[in-house]
Amino acid sequence: MLTVVGSGICRDHLTDRAKKIIERAEVVYGSKKALDNVREFIKGKFKVMKGFSEAEYSEIVEESKRKNVVVVSTGDPMVAGLGTKFHAEVEPGISSVQVALAKLGVDLCDVVVMNAHSKEVNLREIMHFLKFRSVLILANRRFDIKKLGELKVVLLENMCMNERVREGLASEMELSSDYTIIFIRR
Amino acid sequence: MLTVVGSGICRDHLTDRAKKIIERAEVVYGSKKALDNVREFIKGKFKVMKGFSEAEYSEIVEESKRKNVVVVSTGDPMVAGLGTKFHAEVEPGISSVQVALAKLGVDLCDVVVMNAHSKEVNLREIMHFLKFRSVLILANRRFDIKKLGELKVVLLENMCMNERVREGLASEMELSSDYTIIFIRR
Repeated sequence: MLTVVGSGICRDHLTDRAKKIIERAEVVYGSKKALDNVREFIKGKFKVMKGFSEAEYSEIVEESKRKNVVVVSTGDPMVAGLGTKFHAEVEPGISSVQVALAKLGVDLCDVVVMNAHSKEVNLREIMHFLKFRSVLILANRRFDIKKLGELKVVLLENMCMNERVREGLASEMELSSDYTIIFIRR
Repeated sequence: MLTVVGSGICRDHLTDRAKKIIERAEVVYGSKKALDNVREFIKGKFKVMKGFSEAEYSEIVEESKRKNVVVVSTGDPMVAGLGTKFHAEVEPGISSVQVALAKLGVDLCDVVVMNAHSKEVNLREIMHFLKFRSVLILANRRFDIKKLGELKVVLLENMCMNERVREGLASEMELSSDYTIIFIRR
């Protein structure tokens, strides 16, 4: 049995449903950060994921045929997370997108969320969505913010860690964190 | 002090952060359904919201100037919820959108979420978004699904209650629940 469980991103974000699933697991996989979030609820073994490669995913799937295995994903497994990497049950968690929208006072139904971690997000697509919606981009420091030019942006960095929120013109900004959310109001 | 807190939509969805905020409140507001979700954590008074009108929101804001007031919103306050009705701190909860995406195996960064509860969602806008993304519509039984014509849809109704998932052509479907999610794959 294999379940992918969201751990949330802030302290005390874990739901009781998620705790119970983790407590019942024989083996719990996750990044070091994800495992740290849930350590007190692990009763079985735990294994730190390193490669996040297809080979590693296949090994986990193999093991789950014999054992009750949980993969912990920080935030929500269905928000640029590990939920789509497996054919498994998924238990939601609070994502960085939710924390950002709560801070910004913006409803999810008024934004388009884009993931710049795993693929190139191009300006044409951003400008296109901005005609209809505000845009929220999940980014790391490799994201070239200069390409947003004279757009006014809000940067939310390291939420629930050493959090920093800045506002200004994209052309005058630098990204300094791999956990950055860029918000562009429509 | 005023905080809007998400209660999640399934049993045991409440986070420890949300529990603590509710426990500290002198007065807790919410729909009957929302209050039922969190009843065991209410230490102060509770008041059932009825009108969801500007007048009711203003009264709550007035009371929060003298007391520690919490408004409980089912799901996440920033997903077609009460989070945008107040200038207040917002504590996220697990939304029906998250539960639906977990069941569908679809990442939030691959969809556009539309709210048909509070406003008309027109076909042109849906077709437009479908060029780039899958579409997830929050709907009630007044939503005219026939207008989606020959589009193939997945209906997820009453999630975490008497749940029902159906798949088929929109033209052959009827909506029977005020808690319906319509998913249209790109």
